Amino acid sequence: MNSLDRSIEDADAKAYVIFAPGDNPDMRYLTGFSVSDPVFFIKKLHMHGTLIVPQMEKDRAIAESKCDVLSRGDAGYFGYLETEPDPYAAQARMIADIAGGNVLVPRDFPLILARELEKFCRVKIDRGTVEKTRSVKTKAEIEIIRGCQKATDETMDFIISKIRNAESENGELRCGGLPLTSGYLRSEIECFLLKRGFSSKDTIVSCGPETAMPHCTGDGVILENEPVVIDIFPCDLKTGYYADMTRTVVRGEPSPEIEDMYSAVSAAKKLAKDMIRSKVSGKSVHNAVVNFFEESGYKSGAEGFIHSLGHGVGLAVHESPSLSPSGGELEYGNIVTVEPGLYYKKYGGVRLEDMGLVEDTRFDCFTKYEEVLRI
Amino acid sequence: MNSLDRSIEDADAKAYVIFAPGDNPDMRYLTGFSVSDPVFFIKKLHMHGTLIVPQMEKDRAIAESKCDVLSRGDAGYFGYLETEPDPYAAQARMIADIAGGNVLVPRDFPLILARELEKFCRVKIDRGTVEKTRSVKTKAEIEIIRGCQKATDETMDFIISKIRNAESENGELRCGGLPLTSGYLRSEIECFLLKRGFSSKDTIVSCGPETAMPHCTGDGVILENEPVVIDIFPCDLKTGYYADMTRTVVRGEPSPEIEDMYSAVSAAKKLAKDMIRSKVSGKSVHNAVVNFFEESGYKSGAEGFIHSLGHGVGLAVHESPSLSPSGGELEYGNIVTVEPGLYYKKYGGVRLEDMGLVEDTRFDCFTKYEEVLRI
Repeated sequence: MNSLDRSIEDADAKAYVIFAPGDNPDMRYLTGFSVSDPVFFIKKLHMHGTLIVPQMEKDRAIAESKCDVLSRGDAGYFGYLETEPDPYAAQARMIADIAGGNVLVPRDFPLILARELEKFCRVKIDRGTVEKTRSVKTKAEIEIIRGCQKATDETMDFIISKIRNAESENGELRCGGLPLTSGYLRSEIECFLLKRGFSSKDTIVSCGPETAMPHCTGDGVILENEPVVIDIFPCDLKTGYYADMTRTVVRGEPSPEIEDMYSAVSAAKKLAKDMIRSKVSGKSVHNAVVNFFEESGYKSGAEGFIHSLGHGVGLAVHESPSLSPSGGELEYGNIVTVEPGLYYKKYGGVRLEDMGLVEDTRFDCFTKYEEVLRI
Repeated sequence: MNSLDRSIEDADAKAYVIFAPGDNPDMRYLTGFSVSDPVFFIKKLHMHGTLIVPQMEKDRAIAESKCDVLSRGDAGYFGYLETEPDPYAAQARMIADIAGGNVLVPRDFPLILARELEKFCRVKIDRGTVEKTRSVKTKAEIEIIRGCQKATDETMDFIISKIRNAESENGELRCGGLPLTSGYLRSEIECFLLKRGFSSKDTIVSCGPETAMPHCTGDGVILENEPVVIDIFPCDLKTGYYADMTRTVVRGEPSPEIEDMYSAVSAAKKLAKDMIRSKVSGKSVHNAVVNFFEESGYKSGAEGFIHSLGHGVGLAVHESPSLSPSGGELEYGNIVTVEPGLYYKKYGGVRLEDMGLVEDTRFDCFTKYEEVLRI
């Protein structure tokens, strides 16, 4: 029996129901289908799942998804709409009739649909069965994600070479006579990836004081002697799987503080990678890095190491398991990032991020790109 | 009093609460902040709204958002976690204490947070106050979206020129000696847009039988004498606003059926644009197109005109108002698409889509790109 059936049974329910767009990773995982507007997926106990889509998506869903497909019309939606003019009420009645009993839903199920469904059955909340299943990758998934990381390594090499080869004028970098800006480098990265079959967004190319804000995407011209944080997390357009990596470089001479931070971050990453294997908890690896930073003189608070050490990567760029104060036991087949960072308004930020597979005795690191501060 | 305050008061609540990532259009509208992981926004009656973000996002939120900002630590989250180890329970307690009474939430509020909040207060569902407010654009928003459409027109011209100028070999188009594929054209479109400051995804360049599936993104080489549907909906990276347009072209000679479908779709678009103005209902415009198609011999069912006539465009590519069987009265300041289409497995599909502003006496069409079938 698969894990979703077990959760349905444990909840004394008849079916699992999700309502989400196809870029929702659980929906993509369950159906293999990608669609921008939200659709229903319903899986009855011991049965195949069924996608319920608008008429206009039916043929594509049959061609592209791995589950049974009904149009809303096939599922009787327009009949329900005649007696229940409110679309949420009509949808709930349709789902309740198909389920034939209590339903199990994910934590983020829309409240309005739950309230309408509660008129017909009990609505139980599942505690992440699909996310948990997703977090242990199959061989095929592992090879897809390894391939995503390879393309990400190549992108990093491409963009760091651009910074390395830029001209400098009064401390500002230029390329072909024009200022080398964050925006330009971001669009170069994203085009490079598009041409290889990957989408990307919110790519970070931040410089100088911006680097003290971990998710600042960056703005303005790249400066000599200042840290540049490059964080790339592309999504394979065909499969929906992600990779994720970060490097920090300085074109020229880093400040002594940035150089020391870089050494500490690099050592923290190595320490964490050496600890990672199945049965070790994400919490213990995160805490080991916190302790290491403290011993190295970097106490965490409003500044310092202000985020989690890492996260799972798959159909979502951030997913289970977590390498953080709440991180549970790692398992063989998890794919996780290791991304220590230090951030100070006064000096800027440094982050280094690798990604790889949790194995029984070691961490199989997918990221091969070199780690060099000065370029 | 603004509309959100009125809705809070009408619901006998003390605060409006949303929990969503920054690419959620309501969140972006209320906060001006873009973030990939979900965050809380809470607006108490007659007060400014407050974003509650992880520590690592705090400085960026202060710099980039238009509301008050607290880190989760500032909001006492870690204290709540000590007595409520479940993060949802701790989040709910934090929100309940800040709200100080009943809360109003959007329809898609996560069920698990609602259940936890219900232990402390009543949780009322708002029926789209923010989406309704968003649907009436300000002057500044109108000019941003007009600019997005201009870039989209330029992109369409760029890509149709590529198809027009391609070589043909045994009915297959080629460019620089290589097959001209959907994937190549899609990446050319998306790079062209990136370099102008727009992201795009799921761009449609479908050809031949694929065009009968309205949202099929397309695969394989572009063929002569077959319909090519190009649907582009970029998002302005700076502001988050979208545009949306579609053209159908044939390189060479269309079949008589495609030619007739094109004439009908083009006439339907004109008819709809002539009807659109404030106080007209989206339903009446949609139905006028359905009737026109029927009179022209195109009856809708599993094939034919199988989607809505149009939708609002703003911080979401699909938003209120709707030009569909359930579409209500249009208002001055709505920005909507008009996109009739006809789809038959045997012949393929044709869709034409313009976008513009609903005014009191007319539709101000932003889309200027020509409408030509044969190229």
